[in-house]
Amino acid sequence: MKDVRLIIVGFGKIGRGVAETILQKRQIMEEIGLNLKVVAVCEMKGCAVDPNGVDLKGLLEGKVRWGARKTLDVIREQDADVVVELTPGNIETGEPGLSHIKEALQVGKNVVTSNKSPLVVAYKELMELAKKNGVTLRFEATVGGAIPLINTFERELKANKARNIYGILNGTTNFILSKMIEEGVDFKSALKEAQDLGYAETNPDYDVKGIDTAAKVVILANSMLGMNIKLKDVKVEGIERITPEAVELAKQYGFVIKLVGDVAGREVSPRLIPEDHPLNVGGSLNAVQVETDIAGNITLIGRGAGPKETSSAILSDIIAVAEKN
Amino acid sequence: MKDVRLIIVGFGKIGRGVAETILQKRQIMEEIGLNLKVVAVCEMKGCAVDPNGVDLKGLLEGKVRWGARKTLDVIREQDADVVVELTPGNIETGEPGLSHIKEALQVGKNVVTSNKSPLVVAYKELMELAKKNGVTLRFEATVGGAIPLINTFERELKANKARNIYGILNGTTNFILSKMIEEGVDFKSALKEAQDLGYAETNPDYDVKGIDTAAKVVILANSMLGMNIKLKDVKVEGIERITPEAVELAKQYGFVIKLVGDVAGREVSPRLIPEDHPLNVGGSLNAVQVETDIAGNITLIGRGAGPKETSSAILSDIIAVAEKN
Repeated sequence: MKDVRLIIVGFGKIGRGVAETILQKRQIMEEIGLNLKVVAVCEMKGCAVDPNGVDLKGLLEGKVRWGARKTLDVIREQDADVVVELTPGNIETGEPGLSHIKEALQVGKNVVTSNKSPLVVAYKELMELAKKNGVTLRFEATVGGAIPLINTFERELKANKARNIYGILNGTTNFILSKMIEEGVDFKSALKEAQDLGYAETNPDYDVKGIDTAAKVVILANSMLGMNIKLKDVKVEGIERITPEAVELAKQYGFVIKLVGDVAGREVSPRLIPEDHPLNVGGSLNAVQVETDIAGNITLIGRGAGPKETSSAILSDIIAVAEKN
Repeated sequence: MKDVRLIIVGFGKIGRGVAETILQKRQIMEEIGLNLKVVAVCEMKGCAVDPNGVDLKGLLEGKVRWGARKTLDVIREQDADVVVELTPGNIETGEPGLSHIKEALQVGKNVVTSNKSPLVVAYKELMELAKKNGVTLRFEATVGGAIPLINTFERELKANKARNIYGILNGTTNFILSKMIEEGVDFKSALKEAQDLGYAETNPDYDVKGIDTAAKVVILANSMLGMNIKLKDVKVEGIERITPEAVELAKQYGFVIKLVGDVAGREVSPRLIPEDHPLNVGGSLNAVQVETDIAGNITLIGRGAGPKETSSAILSDIIAVAEKN
């Protein structure tokens, strides 16, 4: 049995979901030969640290006290194999995740993250930093939630070259568009319903203006197509101006309107998709199509968000890091 | 650079496709650190053997002479790491592939195959034989062609438990049903078109009666759900009795009719699928949905057949074997 010592940074919905999944999957992990031991959990309140394993159950139930040590100090000083960075990030600055990830890589710790912002702001810099320090930075959870996209392409389609990637990468906008398609309602009503159900934020701009999708386009362009682009290099159009009339007209010709991230094209825009096309998925699902040279087009579909779904991707990455070391 | 010595058995469409892809992908393989060296190619005419590497280009152009050595002798005696079994198989007996694979495993050679029949007939026996001899048997190409299904689930969704798998696993029947849905034609006309275009065999029973899908259900049940079933354990209904009226009625309610393999249910049957469901894919595409405990439902879509597409899966498996050894 191999100990994999983790520092979890960020204990909001995603962090708690990952903690719950680690508890729930202890046995399966042991069958793989891994003992996941969380030696520290940090969030804004402070850090809970225990080299013998933090009491995750107690932490989830609010029964463990948060110590006063600072996150960056714990990342630097605490013995651990992987820093699991799960904070929400500022898309302009990448912070606070960017500093966490840099610190971890600099002191020779592997990083697994669900945090898009640091990668959008500094993908190349971070990958070089990881390489220089002989560690790994993995980020399956940043795009497409539970969908094993980046790892499947990297490891299971290794002989293939990706020519392009098209994706429905944002669940909120897909929920809104699916409502408009199925019920003929207008954008505002569909958005209102998405907000009532918790699929959309009170300020929905980040999603409906296409910025979240653009952030994912940047990550996929840099990681899967070997590009080196930033958010400003992506042309973005959101879904606010889509009318019920446009949706209806598309339908008459056998099409649906979906917000598509076109990675090689560096563009996010509403596009027409044939009804029986693999990218036509309803509800809040995500779908990503990779155009390859020998396997042809491969599409992966799944839930793009949710703490449990995201924790599947985080665990995959932790296993991949552990198996490499 | 690591030499991976291959014996290719079967040099029909798939075998030639694999040979072409090996030639085409030499550079990418070297970047991964692998030198694929084909030390023998066998087919009914005989075997072309060369420990320094068979001239694949010459073989593809018909310029290399087939020697008289027998396939089983070459599998047994020729130094090699992996036997790539690509013959067409008899679904009742599993032969001739079953004997090839058994021989290879018994003499301690890894096996990669696109041949369903041996696995349908003797899955458990073959896996035990591989284990006993300390070698690997991989079969990504047997289900879903280019779709990296089995390997993605095994390696990229490792923390997940699969509860069920639903799939559109046969391109011929999907082509026929897609025609019926899009053009309102009847089964016979759609079948005729599929035959004219080379999507269906002159004797189409194996596809349209659902037997091919059932064979894949057996493989997925045994490999991904840990069952131990044979073809006779699967309840099978084909698509011959589907009428244009049924297709039209389904459409009125927003559904399509697709031939679905329900793996946990051990059943192949035409089923109603909502139009915007991930499994509603047109043309001759394949689609497989895996129901998991933490990642939720993950769907993979791609081309289910074709020499080039199949060779992507074969190469994946060869890489996986090489990396394990």
